[in-house]
Amino acid sequence: MDLARSPLARPFPDMPAIAGVTLRVARAGYKAWDRADLTFAELAQGTALAGVFTKNRCCSTEVEVGREAVKTGRARALIVNAGNSNAFTGHRGREAVDQIMRHVSGRLGCPPAQVLVSSTGVIGVPLPLDKAKTGIAAVLDSPPCGWREATDAIGTTDTFAKGATASAMIGGTKVHLNGIIKGSGMIAPDMATMLGYVFTDAAVEPAFLQQCLVAANARTFSCITVDSDTSTSDTVLAFATGRAGNAPLAGIEDAGADAFMAALGDLCRQLAHLVVRDGEGASKFIAVHVTGAVADDSARRIGLAIANSPLVKTAIAGGDANWGRVVMAVGKAGEPADRDRLSIAFGGIWTAREGLPVEGYDEAPVAEHLRGEEIDIAVDLGLGDGRATVWTCDLTHGYISINADYRS
Amino acid sequence: MDLARSPLARPFPDMPAIAGVTLRVARAGYKAWDRADLTFAELAQGTALAGVFTKNRCCSTEVEVGREAVKTGRARALIVNAGNSNAFTGHRGREAVDQIMRHVSGRLGCPPAQVLVSSTGVIGVPLPLDKAKTGIAAVLDSPPCGWREATDAIGTTDTFAKGATASAMIGGTKVHLNGIIKGSGMIAPDMATMLGYVFTDAAVEPAFLQQCLVAANARTFSCITVDSDTSTSDTVLAFATGRAGNAPLAGIEDAGADAFMAALGDLCRQLAHLVVRDGEGASKFIAVHVTGAVADDSARRIGLAIANSPLVKTAIAGGDANWGRVVMAVGKAGEPADRDRLSIAFGGIWTAREGLPVEGYDEAPVAEHLRGEEIDIAVDLGLGDGRATVWTCDLTHGYISINADYRS
Repeated sequence: MDLARSPLARPFPDMPAIAGVTLRVARAGYKAWDRADLTFAELAQGTALAGVFTKNRCCSTEVEVGREAVKTGRARALIVNAGNSNAFTGHRGREAVDQIMRHVSGRLGCPPAQVLVSSTGVIGVPLPLDKAKTGIAAVLDSPPCGWREATDAIGTTDTFAKGATASAMIGGTKVHLNGIIKGSGMIAPDMATMLGYVFTDAAVEPAFLQQCLVAANARTFSCITVDSDTSTSDTVLAFATGRAGNAPLAGIEDAGADAFMAALGDLCRQLAHLVVRDGEGASKFIAVHVTGAVADDSARRIGLAIANSPLVKTAIAGGDANWGRVVMAVGKAGEPADRDRLSIAFGGIWTAREGLPVEGYDEAPVAEHLRGEEIDIAVDLGLGDGRATVWTCDLTHGYISINADYRS
Repeated sequence: MDLARSPLARPFPDMPAIAGVTLRVARAGYKAWDRADLTFAELAQGTALAGVFTKNRCCSTEVEVGREAVKTGRARALIVNAGNSNAFTGHRGREAVDQIMRHVSGRLGCPPAQVLVSSTGVIGVPLPLDKAKTGIAAVLDSPPCGWREATDAIGTTDTFAKGATASAMIGGTKVHLNGIIKGSGMIAPDMATMLGYVFTDAAVEPAFLQQCLVAANARTFSCITVDSDTSTSDTVLAFATGRAGNAPLAGIEDAGADAFMAALGDLCRQLAHLVVRDGEGASKFIAVHVTGAVADDSARRIGLAIANSPLVKTAIAGGDANWGRVVMAVGKAGEPADRDRLSIAFGGIWTAREGLPVEGYDEAPVAEHLRGEEIDIAVDLGLGDGRATVWTCDLTHGYISINADYRS
C-alpha cells in the first residue's frame, strides 16, 4: 500500500553535526523495500545514555534489553532495524538481539550492553539473523551519512521524515541537540511503533540525563495519541556525547541545567508533534488544553480521554463544534469533574460556560477555526490549578482505509 | 441522515404481556420526527425497582434522580423522552424533570420519587417544558400499546427495535421477564445513549432485585462496547410488579432465586447483544473470550482493551487475523500478562501459542471464519482461572460516515 504524504507534513529541518555521533545506514533487506533499513549510530566513548520505554506488558525483547542498558547509563552504539519489530518472537528474537550486540561491541571494543538495539515493523516474525548479519557487516563499512538519510532508514510506513533540532547555552558553551523519530500510530499491516532518538554533544551525567528525559517525556511523548493503541516497542533514547566541552551537568542546580532541560523539552515536543502530524489518516492537528483540574496528572488524563474519544475525533474531522462529546469524554475519564463548573472553547471561543451552553455565541469564527488544519480545544474544569496540553489528530476515513481495507 | 438498518439486525420477538405493566406512547414533538417520542409505563402498586447507571462523571439530571429513586426501591411509573437527553442543561433541565415527576405522580396518586424519568437525544438543550407537558397530557390519555410500539418510541437513531423475553419457574409459578433497549453507541449528531428497561411480573424484594440486576449487568451491559465512549445517560432499570403471585424472592437462598437470576442474566445478555448488533457502522459481531487471567475482573478489562482497540476492530473489519494487534491490546490493558504464556485463537484455531506464532497453522478455516458475520476471538493468558467474555462490533467506514460526515 502506498501511503500519501500527510497533509500535515513538515519539511525536514537543517540539522547540525553532533560531535561524537557518526551515522551510517545500510540495506539488510528485512523487507522488499529498495532502500536502507538498518541504521548505525556510533557514539563517542563515555556517551551518557537515558531512555524511556513503552508500558505495554507484552513489550519486545529490544525494550527489555534497553531498560537494562539504561541502568548502566552508558552507550557506544545504536542499531535500528526497520521492517521487523521482533516482538512476540520468544527466545529466537532474543538470540538475534544478542548476536547483534556481540557483533557490534566486538568491533567497537565495548561491553555488549553498551550497544542499544531497536526494531520496528511486523510483529511475530523473529528478526532474520542472516539478514541482520549481512546488514551489520555492510553498515560497519559504510561511509558516514547525514541526519536525513538516517531518519529515512529508521522509518517504516511513515509518510515523511521527522527530525528536529535545538540548542542551549551551558555556561559559555553552546550545546546542540538533534532528534529523529519514526511512527504515526500502529500502521497496518505491521505493528509500527514510535522510536525516537535524541543526540546531544552536551556533557551530562547519565542520572541527570535520565531525569531530564523523563521530565520532557511526561509533557511531550506521553501527551500525544493517534489511536489510543500503545505499541509493544515504543522507545525514546537520549545520548549525550559530552564533546561540546561544557562542565558536565549533574543536577538541576548546575549552571545551564535549566537551559538544557528547556532545550530538550522543546526538542521532544517538536518530535512528538511530528508524530501526530503523521497520524494515520490525519487531516487536522488538534491541541487539547485542560485547565482547572485538581492536579496536572488529572488534567493530562482528562486531555487524553478527549483526545482518544472516537466521537470527539470524528466531530473535528467533520468540522463540528460538538462540545457535548467533549463533556462526555471529560466525564468518562474517571477524574474529578463537576458538570456544573465545566467550560469548553473551540479556537478561543467559549461555547459552554460553567455547565451551560453559551447562548447566542458567535458561531462564525468557531466554524472558521474548525475548517482550518490546526484545532484548539480548551477545557476548564473550574476545580483547581491542574493543567496539561495533549495533542492528537482527527479520525477519518483514511484511518479505516489504512487499517481495515488492506489485508496483511 | 437516514441510517440504513444494521446488517446484524434481529427481528423483534413475540413478547407476552407482563401483569402489572401498562404501556402507552404519545408524541411530544421533541424532534421533527413524525412518530411517538414519549413513552409511559404504568406499574402496579408495590412494584420493586432496581437500577444501574452510567459512571460518567458528567451524568444527566435523570441519572442523578434515578439513583435516588433506586434507594427507595419502589416505582409506579416510567417516562422516557426521546430526542433530547436533557444532559448538561443545569437547573432548567432539573426543573423539567421535577415537573414531569410531579405531574405524573399527581395523576397516579404516588410520591414523585416513584416516577422514573429517562431522556435521550441531543445534549445541552434543556428539555422543552411545554412539549413535555403536552406529551405527558397526551400519553396519560392514550390507549395502552404493545411492546413493539414502546420500543420504537424510546429509540432515537437506532436502526432496529430491540427487545427480548425470558421466563423462569419460581416454586410452581411461571414468571415472565421482558426487556427493551435503545442505543448503539453515541450516534451523531446527538448524544445518544443506552437505555434499557426490564419488566417482570415476578415478586422480588427491591434489595434482591438490585442484587440480581447488578450481577447481570456486570456480565452483560458492562461487557459490551461499540466505540469506548461512555455516555452521560446510560441507564438500565428493572421493575418487578409481583403480579405473577410467586412467593416473593428476598435472597439467593430462596427457592427459584437461581432460576430468576439466570433468566434475568439471559435477558440482559440478549439485550446487550442487540445493542452491539446496532453498533454504528457495524458489519461484524465480535465475541472476545478471555481465559487464564489472574481474576475475572482482570479478564474483563483485558477483553475490553481488545474490544476497544481501533486496530483490532479495523483488522476484523478487513477480515485480517492480525493477532499481533491482539497482543498489543492485551499488553496495553495494564493487567497482569506474560507475553511468553499468551495464546490467541480466531474461530477456534490457535494462531499463537504461549508467546510464539503457531507455525503452519491452517489459514483457510481462519480466513473463512473472518469472512463471516460472527467472529470469535479467544485469548488465554496462562496465568490463572480468571475469565470473561466481552462483545463488540468492528470499526468501519460506516462509523466515520455516521460521526464525521454529518454536521449537527
